[in-house]
Amino acid sequence: MRTQVVIVGGGPSGLLLSLLLDKHGIDSVILERKTKDHVLSRIRAGVLERGLVGLLREVGCASRLEREGYVHDGTILSFEDERIGITFTDHVDETVVVYGQTEVTRDLYEAREAAGGKIEFNVEDVMLDDVRTDSPFVTYCVAEEGRRIDCDFIAGCDGFHGVSRKSIPAEVRQEFEKVYPFGWLGILSKTPPVEDKLIYASSKRGFALCSMRNENLSRYYIQCDLDDRIEDWSDDAFWDELRRRIPKDAADKLVTGPSIEKSIAPLRSFVCEPMQWGKLFLCGDAAHIVPPTGAKGLNTAASDVHYLYNALVQFYLDGDRTGIDGYSEKALGRVWKAERFSWWMTSLLHRFPHQGPFDLKMQQAEISFLKSNREAQSVLAQNYVGLPY
Amino acid sequence: MRTQVVIVGGGPSGLLLSLLLDKHGIDSVILERKTKDHVLSRIRAGVLERGLVGLLREVGCASRLEREGYVHDGTILSFEDERIGITFTDHVDETVVVYGQTEVTRDLYEAREAAGGKIEFNVEDVMLDDVRTDSPFVTYCVAEEGRRIDCDFIAGCDGFHGVSRKSIPAEVRQEFEKVYPFGWLGILSKTPPVEDKLIYASSKRGFALCSMRNENLSRYYIQCDLDDRIEDWSDDAFWDELRRRIPKDAADKLVTGPSIEKSIAPLRSFVCEPMQWGKLFLCGDAAHIVPPTGAKGLNTAASDVHYLYNALVQFYLDGDRTGIDGYSEKALGRVWKAERFSWWMTSLLHRFPHQGPFDLKMQQAEISFLKSNREAQSVLAQNYVGLPY
Repeated sequence: MRTQVVIVGGGPSGLLLSLLLDKHGIDSVILERKTKDHVLSRIRAGVLERGLVGLLREVGCASRLEREGYVHDGTILSFEDERIGITFTDHVDETVVVYGQTEVTRDLYEAREAAGGKIEFNVEDVMLDDVRTDSPFVTYCVAEEGRRIDCDFIAGCDGFHGVSRKSIPAEVRQEFEKVYPFGWLGILSKTPPVEDKLIYASSKRGFALCSMRNENLSRYYIQCDLDDRIEDWSDDAFWDELRRRIPKDAADKLVTGPSIEKSIAPLRSFVCEPMQWGKLFLCGDAAHIVPPTGAKGLNTAASDVHYLYNALVQFYLDGDRTGIDGYSEKALGRVWKAERFSWWMTSLLHRFPHQGPFDLKMQQAEISFLKSNREAQSVLAQNYVGLPY
Repeated sequence: MRTQVVIVGGGPSGLLLSLLLDKHGIDSVILERKTKDHVLSRIRAGVLERGLVGLLREVGCASRLEREGYVHDGTILSFEDERIGITFTDHVDETVVVYGQTEVTRDLYEAREAAGGKIEFNVEDVMLDDVRTDSPFVTYCVAEEGRRIDCDFIAGCDGFHGVSRKSIPAEVRQEFEKVYPFGWLGILSKTPPVEDKLIYASSKRGFALCSMRNENLSRYYIQCDLDDRIEDWSDDAFWDELRRRIPKDAADKLVTGPSIEKSIAPLRSFVCEPMQWGKLFLCGDAAHIVPPTGAKGLNTAASDVHYLYNALVQFYLDGDRTGIDGYSEKALGRVWKAERFSWWMTSLLHRFPHQGPFDLKMQQAEISFLKSNREAQSVLAQNYVGLPY
């Protein structure tokens, strides 16, 4: 088999890239290790920047999002009972859309299938070969049958644990990592969200986030210890702890109910440099991870896809290698800014094990300063809605 | 002896406060542990915010400053060879004045002496008594002779090691402290400053600051280990290391010469809460210390003096206790913002012993973001020129 671009990974990045390429007549094949149902069972956050929404619109995948998504023109930060409302539109002409990542993936699959795009599921033993030559190829197995695809380029959209990043030789690959000393315990419940905006709540007891999927589906998180186990957190214990961490006026009106999903996720910052090796280009989690504070994960994957797709179109349509050659540098420029913002929000709002009283005061002082300073709010707003591509 | 306000400490805060009170006919006595010459021998930074300049003008101490000081309308941050020029006046209608703290103190002494203000030098064994009653008094010795001053209020302007803060009982006093794991090695040299603005230079080898006193007197600093000794740093070694940390174009034109002063200072953040206890009010270093990055020390002392002086005038002239009762809260509000800024600048620009590659990248990303973002520059400019009182 032969294609122009092999896309390793059938998550939202790979799907979006394949659809964007298809629009310009560039042929691609997606290889996915799991099944479509498995991919769709992954629950992730869902705050979409304008840039991602624009890309989804470009491939005709925005109509359900525009119907069912919730446009948020601001967010709330709190420290104990003190609140800061940040209205994005006071600072930038942009908003974000609350729409689950799972729904994004579902819409992308539907469009990809409608377009007759090629996807191989259940692929095993994926190997990238001759990546630094003009004729790279990918080998893999399906049902124990070995297959090979020859191609011009390979897009590594296969996530943190995927094979793509590891195909860049260790001696040229530099990995930057920070593992945070806490996790997020999250629950999903069929209850109305406590407020119509997200609340990023800092408190002496730790961080909490009030998020949502729709008007009768809430997503809440609390900072927990890394060695906490889900079975030690009853629903009641979760709700009690959440109430203690959010402003009292919110706690008083919180509607609780049984959890329909409960999980603990660790928090990590990670970046791989370079994001490109010969004909291989990394996109999204394959190259970088952010802690979920500020919801930059999918959005930063989307900016990679934006740069890569434009580079490939420039190459195939104009014969211009500029975008291809500059991909890593360009993508990383924005990645590091998103990493900085996610790290800053995480550092500002969480309790850390060895945090002294002075450090806690610095967090409070930063929040007070934010509350009092328009330009500091603007910096937050610009980062939250997404820096320009 | 009796006075209205006993001022413990004859440094710039105490002198300024006494002159401001005198202007409104409020009587004060200054008690200084050392001699005037000793006070004037202390070398400190000298970047004055507009607020401090305004207070100096109010007491007629600004004419030499206006003649000899250097107005700076911006500053430079660098990371290796990358520079960010921040022009304050692009963001706020304010500038700072470079004028040595020693010169400020000299001008204040001159004015205080001209006004016939009472100062006792060489006082020992200062004790603050009955501070929570309506008739506090201060006892001390001069040349082994015990003396006593009765007063209405006591202003503790006697620095970090002074008796005033310690007169607040330990059980009501909360102290917040951060000791940084490095120091600043500074030299003064009779050479023209490398540039007409200050350069706050970050580099992989550590922080450096290019500062100045006048057109033929430069002040340079480099981050050093806490256990470094001055005698291990020859002038040549200092200049070599400085050149490696500042942008190449600056290093190339650096004029070096013999040091006329060389010292190592540790870096500390410290705040005492409350800043008030009965009739005792703390001002400046007695209540808080900032690391020198961003030059907030004297300026934050000045804002305390501003709040206290206004509170005392309000009390004596209008019989209104509002300012007196609210002093600690009001002063601390601004103190914590200055602490936050100094801590942020210090954290951004120095190398830390246990800093991993990811942390270093976060510093670089913050500097890149600053370079690219007008509002982030505005936040820096507003803090640097001094937040409003």
